[in-house]
Formats: sequence, C-alpha cells, structure tokens
Amino acid sequence: MLVPPPVVVVAPNSYKGSVSATAAAAALSRGLARVWPDGERRICPMADGGEGTLDAIFSRGGRRGSARVSGASGAPIDAAFGLIEGDAIAVIESAQVVGLTEANGIATAVEQRSTRGLGELVRTLLDAGIRKFMIGLGGSSTNDAGAGMLATLGVKLVDGKGRDVEPTPLGLKALAQVDASTLDPRMAEAQITIMSDVTNPLCGERGATAIFGPQKGVATERVAEIDATLARFAPLAERAIGRGVKDRPGAGAAGGLGFALLLLGGELRSGAEVVADLLGLDAALWLITGEGRTDRQTLLGKAPFVAARHAAARGVPVTLVSGSIDRSALAELRSRFTSCHALAFGPATLEECVANAPALLADTAEQLARLFQARAA
Amino acid sequence: MLVPPPVVVVAPNSYKGSVSATAAAAALSRGLARVWPDGERRICPMADGGEGTLDAIFSRGGRRGSARVSGASGAPIDAAFGLIEGDAIAVIESAQVVGLTEANGIATAVEQRSTRGLGELVRTLLDAGIRKFMIGLGGSSTNDAGAGMLATLGVKLVDGKGRDVEPTPLGLKALAQVDASTLDPRMAEAQITIMSDVTNPLCGERGATAIFGPQKGVATERVAEIDATLARFAPLAERAIGRGVKDRPGAGAAGGLGFALLLLGGELRSGAEVVADLLGLDAALWLITGEGRTDRQTLLGKAPFVAARHAAARGVPVTLVSGSIDRSALAELRSRFTSCHALAFGPATLEECVANAPALLADTAEQLARLFQARAA
Repeated sequence: MLVPPPVVVVAPNSYKGSVSATAAAAALSRGLARVWPDGERRICPMADGGEGTLDAIFSRGGRRGSARVSGASGAPIDAAFGLIEGDAIAVIESAQVVGLTEANGIATAVEQRSTRGLGELVRTLLDAGIRKFMIGLGGSSTNDAGAGMLATLGVKLVDGKGRDVEPTPLGLKALAQVDASTLDPRMAEAQITIMSDVTNPLCGERGATAIFGPQKGVATERVAEIDATLARFAPLAERAIGRGVKDRPGAGAAGGLGFALLLLGGELRSGAEVVADLLGLDAALWLITGEGRTDRQTLLGKAPFVAARHAAARGVPVTLVSGSIDRSALAELRSRFTSCHALAFGPATLEECVANAPALLADTAEQLARLFQARAA
Repeated sequence: MLVPPPVVVVAPNSYKGSVSATAAAAALSRGLARVWPDGERRICPMADGGEGTLDAIFSRGGRRGSARVSGASGAPIDAAFGLIEGDAIAVIESAQVVGLTEANGIATAVEQRSTRGLGELVRTLLDAGIRKFMIGLGGSSTNDAGAGMLATLGVKLVDGKGRDVEPTPLGLKALAQVDASTLDPRMAEAQITIMSDVTNPLCGERGATAIFGPQKGVATERVAEIDATLARFAPLAERAIGRGVKDRPGAGAAGGLGFALLLLGGELRSGAEVVADLLGLDAALWLITGEGRTDRQTLLGKAPFVAARHAAARGVPVTLVSGSIDRSALAELRSRFTSCHALAFGPATLEECVANAPALLADTAEQLARLFQARAA
C-alpha cells in the first residue's frame, strides 16, 4: 500500500537561552526531511504574545514592514511589523518598539520611558488604511500605563494649569485632567486583539509596577509612588473614554499598555491561543512542538501546551521535544502530549545541549519520525 | 477499529556499569505495561556468550540447577547452570565456574588457576544423562588452554617421567606427553555449542595470553613464557585427540578454553546469535533493545545489533534505547535500527543516568510506546 507523504506541523516554542522558535522549527524540519523527503512540513513557530510573536504569525504568510518611530527613551528606532490576510491586519510586537533593549533601557530611567512609539506606529498603520490590529505584549521596558500611546493617538493629558504633561510615570505625577474628545476618530473603527498571557490588573499588589516594575529597573522604594501615579491616571482616563478596565485581567501587561489597549476597546486573548489558531492543522498527521524546559508550568497555558490542545482537538497526535523534561510531571504531561522526549543522546551538560541544540533537534526529530512511521510501514 | 494488544519483544543487552540485561528488560517492560496493560511482552535479555548468557537463555524457559565444583583456584564453588528443551540441553556459563571473581582471582596467581571445575560440571551433567551442551565463554580468570577441563574429563597429562602434571600454566611447563585414550567415552556422543564473540587463535601475538592475559593478572614479562607453554601443549593435545584447532577463530577465547572445547568437537557460534535465535519474534509487532553505550562497535556484532538483524529479517521494527549514543554513528545505525534513543530526559551526568537507569528506562519506553502506537490509533 502506498502511504501518502505525511503532513507534519512543526510548532516549537523558543528554547530559552538557546534557539528561537523559528530556528528550532527549521532544525526539527531538517530532521523530518531526512525521513520524509517528499512530505509536507508546515513550519509554525509558536509564541505567547511576547518576543517572537511577530515571527510566529508572520511565518504563516503575509509581508513584513518597518516604520521609524520613537523608542521607549525617545530616540528613533526602526520597528518591524507584519501585514497578514492581504494587508487587512497589522501585527505589532510591542517589544519591537519599547522592548527591554539596550537602546531603550540603559540611557533613561523607567520613570521617563514612554510608549509614544506604539501610538506612532498605530497612526502610521491607520494612515495606510489598516483598522485591524493584533498587538503582542511582553518584554516591554515601559511602565506608563500606555499613556504615551494614548497621547500620541490624540488623548490630551494636562496638568492643573492646562499644560500638556509628559506621558511618562514622571510626567503623570502632575496630571490633572484627561480629554479623549481629541482621540483620533479612526480609532472608533479599530479592532484590536491584545495578545498576552499576563492576567495582572493595572495597579495594586498584583499590578504592573509591583510585579513587573523591578525587572525594568524600578527601585523597590519607588514602586508605591509610581503605582499611585498610575492609580490616579487610570480613573481619569477611564472617565474620559467611558470604559472601566483597570481591574480587568491583562490591564497590567507590558507596564500597563494592556490597560490603554483595553481602554481603546481591545480584546485580550492568550497570545499562544492566537498563534495556535494559525496552526495549519488541516490533514495534519502529526504535530511536533517543544521548548527549553518542560514541567508542570507548561500545563498552565504555555505555547506548547496550547498547540497540543489545538492539535488534540482535531485528533492529531502531539510529540514534545524539549531541552529537558521534569520526569515527575510525566504523568500529568501524558494527558496533553502523545509523547515527550528530550533532545540529548546521552549524558550531557546544559551548555552542551544549548550549544548543539539545532543539530540535536534535527537528529531527535529524525529518530522520532522513524519510529512514528514504523508501525504504518 | 479494535487494534489487538501488541506483542513486544524486550531484548536489551546489559547496560555496563549500570543494570543487567535482565533488570533492563524488566524496567523497559514496566514502561510498556503503562501503555499496553493487556499487551504481551516477551522478556528476552540479550547476551554475547559472556556474563548474563545463562540468564538470557534461561529467561526463555527451562530450569535452573547448581553443582558444587572447583573454582579456578581450586576452592569449591556452587556453579549455576541451566537445563532447557526438556532437560535435553545444559547451558553453562564459564564465568560461573572460573569467572573473574574475588574467590577465583585474588588468592592464586593466574599461572596456578585451572578450568578443572568446567570438567567437573560437564561430568556431573554427563552423569545426569545430558549430551548436549551450550557453553558460554567470556569473563574467565584462567589461561590454561582448557587443560584443567580436559584432565578432569580423563585426558592424561604427564611429564617426562610419566607423572601427572598440574593442568595449569605452571604445571604444563613440565608436560611431555598427552594421552586422550582415557577420555571419558561419553564425550564421543557430546554435542557442544561454544558461544563466544572472541575470534582470537590460541597462541601468538593475537593469542589468548597476549591479548587477554594482562587483564587476568599475567605480568607483561611473563606473557611470552606462558604463551610458549600453551604453544607446546596445543600440538600434543591435538595429536592425542586427532584434531587441529589451535589456530581456529575462538581457540583463544576464555584463556584457551575455546581451544579445548573445539578439540572436543565443539562448534563455535556467536553467543549473541545463539541468544537471538531464541527471541520469540513470532507475531511480534516491535522489538526494543539497548545497551550502555552505542557506537560503531555495536554494528560489529554486538548483541543489540544481532537482535536487530533477527527482527529486521522478519520485518519487525527495532528501537534502540541506550544510555548514550554516538551521534556521529547515527547515519550507520540507521541501516540497522528503526530508531535510536537515549534514556535521559535532559542534561544529566553519567552517574545520574547510571543511578536512575531503571526508572529512566521505564519512562523512556513508555514515551516511545506512546509514539509508536500514535499512528495506529
């Protein structure tokens, strides 16, 4: 009997500290090609809304663009974006504009960083006629509750004397009034999908500043003050726009950029879910996913788990190939993954696995594919 | 469609320095049982004629016996043997009698060790009516060219004055004459299968003493002298019995025990081949084998390779699960094994893999079985 060459969906996450999701997918695919040279391999790197999301969505088709906008510190940067569905939807990764990079982070204190660049990018895309946006949060260096983006899109932020304030944590300390009547009217037509796995509210103990501020450089003793500034800004902005969103899950994502996007009518979705929706699972025989380290956390909604759930819903077996797997979690992983494998071929250090990851991924995928097809032969 | 529970043959070699073939087979089987609780698992540990051969053959059925005989140093030991095929065939592992154990090795110099105990065991079995023998060589502490066994079976070894000499390397220095007319007449009916992977001749540069003597304690400066002693003994014995075998492959196995068994009409076979002949491959869906370390040497006739060849000849896919696999040999291993996998679940030291081998084998077998059956589902 002639078995048609299989369709395999290759959908790994990034292997943190080693290879990107895109590089991992290429390596796994290389191994599969040795077994099924004529088979179809759909390269679908996964992401969770943070870094790599643009590449992940873009890998399914579309075209890439770039715009010169303000970085978090104000200096101009070239931010990549994607256009998919025949240029109908723009895909933005906030880390591309205000990411925790040297250009954004080192020079300026977090109190003076702003998300203006996001507003500039959205405006540029509105000018191009685009009204649908998919915006991935994660990996930002800002903590301005999206004030910079709102201001750039026309929202007026003024002090007690009616003077514009800087849309930064520092500037917002003087904020007295928010006027949204000047908001770019095209935003009324905008449909925004916010991609994030963060469910924190904007303020308070579980808020953006308390939880994510320190890793962006907020000194512990400044947390309360900045949190209070955002807590004063939020209700003013909510009243001006006419929506209450500061306590919604995800308002605290990306230093409060989630809050501003929710305020603009954005809909929060799990980044991994959005990316997984784009998996080409039609007629797929097998899905391979993976990540750096797999443990019980993986089952709380990480990208490989989400990919696995999508595949399982269509009856597609799912194999996980990770740098390391917590064996004590295998019993739980069993309910979600057809099989779980590490990529080492014997005793090895973490450094060796990291350094040889592409070759190990290719060799492991090849061996697993040979086993997978053995029974059909 | 109802798929019948599969028959899986579990045939690992020992994992040197970690688990025996029997323990490895049990661990792999444990993992498979989690996937196919109702499936049939044929536990067939592999061996190459050396240590573990008795267990391997015995695992396929038969009963176990024990006899008190002389160890290599002369002290009595209880040697295990097996009876298979309805007691028609005795399985002997020479390491059980003259193995490199503390009792045999430490007390006496190799020049004074003897294979008498093998002769005693054969005689005991002849007394029990047995005429078919499978004798595994390997792991011996002796270097007497089987003189001890021959003497115990009735061959007279005398010096120039007609006095019996000790059947040891030391005693044979005084040897002047060999008389085989006194050989136990029942040996004429004996059928002996010699199981060994060693192909060395009895004497010379590639002979038993030069190649294997040092690891048994032969001092480098004594190699030539002992080799010369055996070289004088061999033609005398050959003439007495009427066969020329000293240069045959395997004559140098087990310190020359191979020579003596060939002299008695034994037929040399690869131990792994004999054991693999007993694999229950009928209706098998899958064979799992493995070893401590797999590299190109494995392809030169090691037990997992032989098991794989037997399975492949019947169209049964073969999966290898080893402690470590030389990735640079994967291309060659591909021609013999359906798939090759290591048992680690992430970065680990050799010590960790060795210490956790049973649990790692079980978990790995489980994951591979889940993948193996995925496509059939």
